[in-house]
Amino acid sequence: MGRVVEITDVILRDAHQSLLATRMAMEDMIPACEDLDNAGYWSLECWGGATYDSCIRFLNEDPWERLRTFRKLLPKTKLQMLLRGQNLLGYRHYEDGVVERFVDKAAENGMDVFRVFDALNDLRNLKTAIAAVRKTGKHAQGTISYTVSPVHTTQAFVEMAQHLKDMGADSICIKDMAALLKPQQAYELVKGIKEKCGADTLIHLHVHSTTGVTMVSIMKAIEAGCDIIDTSISSLALGSGHNPTEAVVEMLSDTGFETRLDKARLLKVKDYFAKIRPRYREFMSDFTGVDTEIFKSQIPGGMISNMESQLKGQGAGDRLQEVLAEVPRVRADAGFPPLVTPSSQIVGTQAVFNVLMGKYKAMTAEFADLMLGYYGSTLGKKDPKVLAQAEAQAKKPVITGRPADLLKPEWEHLRSAALALEGCNGSDEDVLTHAMFPQVAPKFFKSRSEGPKNLGKDPVKKEAAAPAKPEGKADGAANGNGGLKSPVTYVVSIHGREHKVTVAPGA
Amino acid sequence: MGRVVEITDVILRDAHQSLLATRMAMEDMIPACEDLDNAGYWSLECWGGATYDSCIRFLNEDPWERLRTFRKLLPKTKLQMLLRGQNLLGYRHYEDGVVERFVDKAAENGMDVFRVFDALNDLRNLKTAIAAVRKTGKHAQGTISYTVSPVHTTQAFVEMAQHLKDMGADSICIKDMAALLKPQQAYELVKGIKEKCGADTLIHLHVHSTTGVTMVSIMKAIEAGCDIIDTSISSLALGSGHNPTEAVVEMLSDTGFETRLDKARLLKVKDYFAKIRPRYREFMSDFTGVDTEIFKSQIPGGMISNMESQLKGQGAGDRLQEVLAEVPRVRADAGFPPLVTPSSQIVGTQAVFNVLMGKYKAMTAEFADLMLGYYGSTLGKKDPKVLAQAEAQAKKPVITGRPADLLKPEWEHLRSAALALEGCNGSDEDVLTHAMFPQVAPKFFKSRSEGPKNLGKDPVKKEAAAPAKPEGKADGAANGNGGLKSPVTYVVSIHGREHKVTVAPGA
Repeated sequence: MGRVVEITDVILRDAHQSLLATRMAMEDMIPACEDLDNAGYWSLECWGGATYDSCIRFLNEDPWERLRTFRKLLPKTKLQMLLRGQNLLGYRHYEDGVVERFVDKAAENGMDVFRVFDALNDLRNLKTAIAAVRKTGKHAQGTISYTVSPVHTTQAFVEMAQHLKDMGADSICIKDMAALLKPQQAYELVKGIKEKCGADTLIHLHVHSTTGVTMVSIMKAIEAGCDIIDTSISSLALGSGHNPTEAVVEMLSDTGFETRLDKARLLKVKDYFAKIRPRYREFMSDFTGVDTEIFKSQIPGGMISNMESQLKGQGAGDRLQEVLAEVPRVRADAGFPPLVTPSSQIVGTQAVFNVLMGKYKAMTAEFADLMLGYYGSTLGKKDPKVLAQAEAQAKKPVITGRPADLLKPEWEHLRSAALALEGCNGSDEDVLTHAMFPQVAPKFFKSRSEGPKNLGKDPVKKEAAAPAKPEGKADGAANGNGGLKSPVTYVVSIHGREHKVTVAPGA
Repeated sequence: MGRVVEITDVILRDAHQSLLATRMAMEDMIPACEDLDNAGYWSLECWGGATYDSCIRFLNEDPWERLRTFRKLLPKTKLQMLLRGQNLLGYRHYEDGVVERFVDKAAENGMDVFRVFDALNDLRNLKTAIAAVRKTGKHAQGTISYTVSPVHTTQAFVEMAQHLKDMGADSICIKDMAALLKPQQAYELVKGIKEKCGADTLIHLHVHSTTGVTMVSIMKAIEAGCDIIDTSISSLALGSGHNPTEAVVEMLSDTGFETRLDKARLLKVKDYFAKIRPRYREFMSDFTGVDTEIFKSQIPGGMISNMESQLKGQGAGDRLQEVLAEVPRVRADAGFPPLVTPSSQIVGTQAVFNVLMGKYKAMTAEFADLMLGYYGSTLGKKDPKVLAQAEAQAKKPVITGRPADLLKPEWEHLRSAALALEGCNGSDEDVLTHAMFPQVAPKFFKSRSEGPKNLGKDPVKKEAAAPAKPEGKADGAANGNGGLKSPVTYVVSIHGREHKVTVAPGA
């Protein structure tokens, strides 16, 4: 028996968030639950900001009901969620009372492991959430948002881990959303944390597979003592998603490390999601390979497509390369924030503005807030000139305290606002839904009684896909170079419905 | 400066063989040559059995002309080929004089590195080719066809490496075509060879990425001292192909190992093939993920689809699972041959026969030959009962000698047969083409003057691909669940030609 390496599968949350735009319907996850629950996972990640948002925005599904359903269907396995620290699952800071209320309700509805992170790695944005989780008796995981910059040394991250532990974190997560963590760095970071914080400190590694190196980083992290690894079932893995669960199991053969996973169960889950995935084709990311350019620009793939569409909207689609070169400079001016929601959008948009209008000629309100400390503190120093510009433009002072300290108790106000909405059921859960997504919740409350929507569709028949192939013609026809010689009939499938179409040449 | 790990890129041969059914036209490779030649590779693999076959069968291109063109366009880099030992690039054993002639001609036309392998790992099938390469002064690489079985221990492979070295091999290749080589086994095998054959023994690792673990195997092989690694540029990598070149470069950062590769050149090659790949969509393998089931069955993916179509042809498409279970038993009966061309086809077809007609009720001639030693010897012992059946059915004796020893000098005969063909130019190269592909060469000689064909096609417009989208309708329409309400016009693209099609609901 080798040392057991524990596995968390992200198939119910980050896998479809990364690969299918978070659109998977609950009814498409339910049939996999029995096998997942019996496969021997340390935990199953199944809830977070994007899944919550998608539930009420696209799927007409109550995210709290989703959580309760998972709890019922996964009785043997810990449920895990991703929590944006003081932002909860939303995009602004919430007052401490709201943070505590949210954590209480999530625990009460069945959550076991809370992975708490902050986009800037500002520990003050984590402390209320971690303390709240501790109070419920659930597992509080303190998170390092991994990034690469001149100030983000292994030593700096190790110290952050120690602070998280001092804060009461039950485990430390290294969260590498952009797949920047290379093998040697993974080894040194895990080793450093174990040495500094004690060998019994639980370390949980979350990496994406985007750059193609992180499978090796997982191996080196395990060699350095890493305890728990995030993976995703292979039929919904790779690309900007995660490393495949089954491959991690196999990779460990005879190494002196092993997982507790039941391969027969994994195979059933894999075959199941292999059938589900094509139903979400229209939401699939085009990117399925690897991209090592991310190491140069530090810019995650999702951010690039975002900037591209901003540029195209301005008729400046040809200036992407300038923007890609500008992003690292803006990031340096802002004190090297990790590039993750929301800092990635804030830095990216400012870089677009700089290229289109001249350096800091126009500053977004969000970028000014980032410079002035309203999102928290950064590890690097901010550029004093840009900071002065931000102050002048935003007409707000620099703050150095914890942003949430500026907030007054807001629960009663949030509660009355929610209760005034048609369809609000008066529960704390509904108040929290409205508090986090005030734009989307009113419509959701109104339509909730209609029940969940499934946006998956039966895959378009292969005949109708590119290239369309004439009925009753041999396969070999596809190899010819010639065009059409006489009218032929095709089966064209639109929105899952088949149509026979006759086409004449040159029609 | 860390230890330099050398890289061979397979983009010009095995990458498109694995991912695009070997169809890439020479004209689609030429524009990448300057960057490839200046990127700092140890060698570029660019020639082998399947590329040769595809040239004359599908592309109307002279494979020798392809070799000469590569030589001209890649003056700084070693050219590398894959040679099936005594089978050369064909499917039968050739007499020694033909093997020597082929090697001479390949060297003369510009080949530098000959990777010589045998499907059964029978060293007697390698020795003439290796000696012939040595005589030309070029690089002879002796190959271990990696497989997993009770008899294929690390020790057995290490001994094979020593025999290859004794035979005069300039380097040892570990060739893992089915992605079965796990990290720990990679480490032990490389370490074992270095210890047994000397630290200065050059070891070259070839792995596919199919099972998702071999990126880690590459890392462990390097840690054990491996000198050269096969990779493929990322835009034509992964799936049943290879691990991405750029990711291997990045993975080594700060590890004490480094490649000599120029990242800017790699990026240009990547961007170039990212544009070429979609032109071969119709030849693309559907498989782009990872498949760890191969570890259980030992059956490479390509072999499964082959057996599937055999079964369907017999109206027994539902019996694949039985066949998958039968393959390992047939392989054991046959003495555990590695499953690679041609042994994979021979074992697979026999397994299909066993399932459909009863155990060895019908034996293919090829399987009988395999049992009786006509392909060479296997590492494992053969089942005596099945062996007796083979003898009885084939009415041929068991042989224990080298199969090619049964052959008489055949060059003059091959020469006169080729020269009698219309369009044969009388060169030794043409004689070899006809000798290796007697079914295909006559047609090729006849049509050669028409010049090469390019089977790539401009990608089908996205609008015509699944799902077809009505012209002039907003994107949002695709999100609705409703069918068609009124006639709409589509653009359908067939064989690169666009057709406007109007469809009415329920037509």
